[in-house]
Amino acid sequence: MNETTVVEYGEKALSEPIMVVGLPGIGLIGKLVAEHIISELKAEKIMEIFSPSFPPQVNVNPDGTIKLVSNEIYACNGNGQSPDLLILVGDFQSVTNEGHYELAGIYLDVAEKFKAKRIYTLGGYGTGKLIDVPHVLYATNKADIIEEVKSYGAIFNEGELSGGIIGASGLILGLGELRGIEAVCFMGETSGYLVDPKSAQAVLTVLSKALNLTIDMKELEARAQEIEKIITKIKELEQQQPPGPKEFTAEDKYIV
Amino acid sequence: MNETTVVEYGEKALSEPIMVVGLPGIGLIGKLVAEHIISELKAEKIMEIFSPSFPPQVNVNPDGTIKLVSNEIYACNGNGQSPDLLILVGDFQSVTNEGHYELAGIYLDVAEKFKAKRIYTLGGYGTGKLIDVPHVLYATNKADIIEEVKSYGAIFNEGELSGGIIGASGLILGLGELRGIEAVCFMGETSGYLVDPKSAQAVLTVLSKALNLTIDMKELEARAQEIEKIITKIKELEQQQPPGPKEFTAEDKYIV
Amino acid sequence: MNETTVVEYGEKALSEPIMVVGLPGIGLIGKLVAEHIISELKAEKIMEIFSPSFPPQVNVNPDGTIKLVSNEIYACNGNGQSPDLLILVGDFQSVTNEGHYELAGIYLDVAEKFKAKRIYTLGGYGTGKLIDVPHVLYATNKADIIEEVKSYGAIFNEGELSGGIIGASGLILGLGELRGIEAVCFMGETSGYLVDPKSAQAVLTVLSKALNLTIDMKELEARAQEIEKIITKIKELEQQQPPGPKEFTAEDKYIV
Amino acid sequence: MNETTVVEYGEKALSEPIMVVGLPGIGLIGKLVAEHIISELKAEKIMEIFSPSFPPQVNVNPDGTIKLVSNEIYACNGNGQSPDLLILVGDFQSVTNEGHYELAGIYLDVAEKFKAKRIYTLGGYGTGKLIDVPHVLYATNKADIIEEVKSYGAIFNEGELSGGIIGASGLILGLGELRGIEAVCFMGETSGYLVDPKSAQAVLTVLSKALNLTIDMKELEARAQEIEKIITKIKELEQQQPPGPKEFTAEDKYIV
Repeated sequence: MNETTVVEYGEKALSEPIMVVGLPGIGLIGKLVAEHIISELKAEKIMEIFSPSFPPQVNVNPDGTIKLVSNEIYACNGNGQSPDLLILVGDFQSVTNEGHYELAGIYLDVAEKFKAKRIYTLGGYGTGKLIDVPHVLYATNKADIIEEVKSYGAIFNEGELSGGIIGASGLILGLGELRGIEAVCFMGETSGYLVDPKSAQAVLTVLSKALNLTIDMKELEARAQEIEKIITKIKELEQQQPPGPKEFTAEDKYIV
Repeated sequence: MNETTVVEYGEKALSEPIMVVGLPGIGLIGKLVAEHIISELKAEKIMEIFSPSFPPQVNVNPDGTIKLVSNEIYACNGNGQSPDLLILVGDFQSVTNEGHYELAGIYLDVAEKFKAKRIYTLGGYGTGKLIDVPHVLYATNKADIIEEVKSYGAIFNEGELSGGIIGASGLILGLGELRGIEAVCFMGETSGYLVDPKSAQAVLTVLSKALNLTIDMKELEARAQEIEKIITKIKELEQQQPPGPKEFTAEDKYIV
Repeated sequence: MNETTVVEYGEKALSEPIMVVGLPGIGLIGKLVAEHIISELKAEKIMEIFSPSFPPQVNVNPDGTIKLVSNEIYACNGNGQSPDLLILVGDFQSVTNEGHYELAGIYLDVAEKFKAKRIYTLGGYGTGKLIDVPHVLYATNKADIIEEVKSYGAIFNEGELSGGIIGASGLILGLGELRGIEAVCFMGETSGYLVDPKSAQAVLTVLSKALNLTIDMKELEARAQEIEKIITKIKELEQQQPPGPKEFTAEDKYIV
Repeated sequence: MNETTVVEYGEKALSEPIMVVGLPGIGLIGKLVAEHIISELKAEKIMEIFSPSFPPQVNVNPDGTIKLVSNEIYACNGNGQSPDLLILVGDFQSVTNEGHYELAGIYLDVAEKFKAKRIYTLGGYGTGKLIDVPHVLYATNKADIIEEVKSYGAIFNEGELSGGIIGASGLILGLGELRGIEAVCFMGETSGYLVDPKSAQAVLTVLSKALNLTIDMKELEARAQEIEKIITKIKELEQQQPPGPKEFTAEDKYIV
């Protein structure tokens, strides 16, 4: 395989869909949210993207069959209130610089093909410390929708995100702007050290308002509670260390 | 040389061959098995693959002549019971991400050209500790041959291989699935610290059943005994150290 | 986006312009100077260059809107005394080796399109220690303009720059020579540990003479004074350390 | 510049020339020898190769003019006894894997264009310790010239060069074999820690016999004596250290 290859599975009629992008990244927040929506809405897989820019890897299913690593696009129709959806998830982002640009272009091609009205990319914003109530930050490629975006509960304080947004979540906004496709990135605050279903819940809450969608969060809540237990355990272990509790640091193990 | 180049050496008539892939990887298991089969069955070299994705290197033969690093395809006819074989071996796997995908595609082209019925890729599965009786794990791109594969002595426990299969052994399964070519990966358990002819013997035992082939293993046994002596020596040295024996760790030198 | 893309914003008539290049590099000197000129001369943006060789990143503006990372070309007409100018600035240089060569070629295409008479590339020269009065070094791709270049206040001592000039500032001279485009690089001496508006002032002083241009430097002076305060603070902290003051070293943090 | 570019400087009539390749590598041995021959034989530059696979760098001449990094091909006619020569030297080898293969192919194109009878590539063979009388090892892509090659004073002991030959010196042999161009690599033994004009002398002695050429070595001798002085100094410093003299190790600084 020398070129990125898009495999299409049948046809799906969508009317002015919204595209939701949840690829792996800090805290796995975008991926958790997008997979949760796919599962709850029973969205169906309509496309799969394979690429030499992904690692040369297959994942192994519980029965010993394999799955070539890919990005996948799911679709589902709205419920009258909520819009039709295209949902992009995946095993990896590109491992090469150029691959990031190529793949973001391919995602936008899909958005254009389905005449998507807007794209929401989902991710995390690493703060370097554990956070009790994670905020959801926004960034957008269209100034005149900022007030609307704020009304969904996302915030932005001047000076934040000074390091920029790296990877597909940002690039889709940047390349989307060049094509006139409006796009918003929602980022849940997260420590950066753990998979963060609590922050994913916060992002999903904002996204649900944006999509006018009611979605069950029990599964995410359950996962959040599991992680809370791990954090509590780590904190206890730290307090037993003679020199007193120490802060989490970037050197601590990233638990996926 | 700007492009991967396939050099063909004459014609070889093969009927519905099975392809066996043994490229360098953890414990050198796949390479040991494939080279052993080539040597025992006196298979003949029919193709050589040179690529800018391999290191810029020549190896030096005992007489001072050189050999440009490559992957090689050998072929031999079956003995009536056993099938015709295509055997892929090589000095290196790709050193670039994209090269892995390109080369796996070329291997599949060869399989298709010869109308190969199935591909067995061979490798190791690093466990991080020395193992007395290595199991052979399987993974496959076709669910309905799992029972057959198990009958050859390979096993798979749910949750294993959670890190996926990286490199040609996995990619051939993944890209093969897209082309409808059935493929199985056999992985011998291995510490990951040593060349492992004992695990190679285990893999060859399973593969021999799959190929309905009787093959002499004396040479692999001899090599396994050499490595056993090295391990015994290392263990003795460790026991002489004042703080008592320590476990092998990832920092220990990889003896090739 | 698979290819570097140049977006043009309207037409701008320029007569025999001089091109000034100030991309990010050591001490951010070139970038500081070029941005200062753009701001003071109210130059207008005429082109923007996006490239898969830049990081996959968007920057975030103070209002939460985003900007895809790029290189930008500004233009302004001279004041009768001073020449028309093309000014190249940007967020990043290429992150890949090949990208450096491609982008330098694109910058030269722009220079040729506008029939630029000469190119000045601006950068820093790391000395590894704090410098009170930074010199400005020159290098050029045309021997017979050396005396002219010296007359602007730049110097060159044999044996300096023995490590060569790395990145766009050098490559534009090298590739420019192959196309017959005369080009000069001005490098302000700088420690290499800090953004260096003082060295930027020194470079701007030389460049102003070369362009026969009077330019207000208040803003650069103010920034230089801020950095001086930081340096003074660091020196005080060092003097409070028991083993006495220590020199800045390459391991010290680079404050951007 | 998106592609490797070969610039030709005039025409040069050569009859069945021998090509000598001396690119930077361990001990800078090949480069020292090739530059010495160019200087002594007053060879003239006939080609220059620029490439996006070289670093994005210009070198700076003593007068402040610059030189884009490149590989260069020089030529000179024989003296009746000795053959016409093509001599390849350069600032760098490729920094990318694929670039190594592309450039080696271009060098072979030049050899074919001039109907070169043979190629000698020159390099070093790192032994990890200081050597009083460096041997010259050979490797070749043609078994039936081994006796001839030995008669020039080069040696090869079975088991040597087990790590292969990496870079242009080896690749030219490997890719040359595929094209039917006979080629020999001469490698001078060297510690690997220092530029090694003494080993370069040894290689030049062997090469001179191969080319039936008498060449003055005063300059190389003078440089060798300078390096000897540095080594003596280092040894003295080591003997003054309380725990007695220690061996050179890979961690010692590489003095270029």
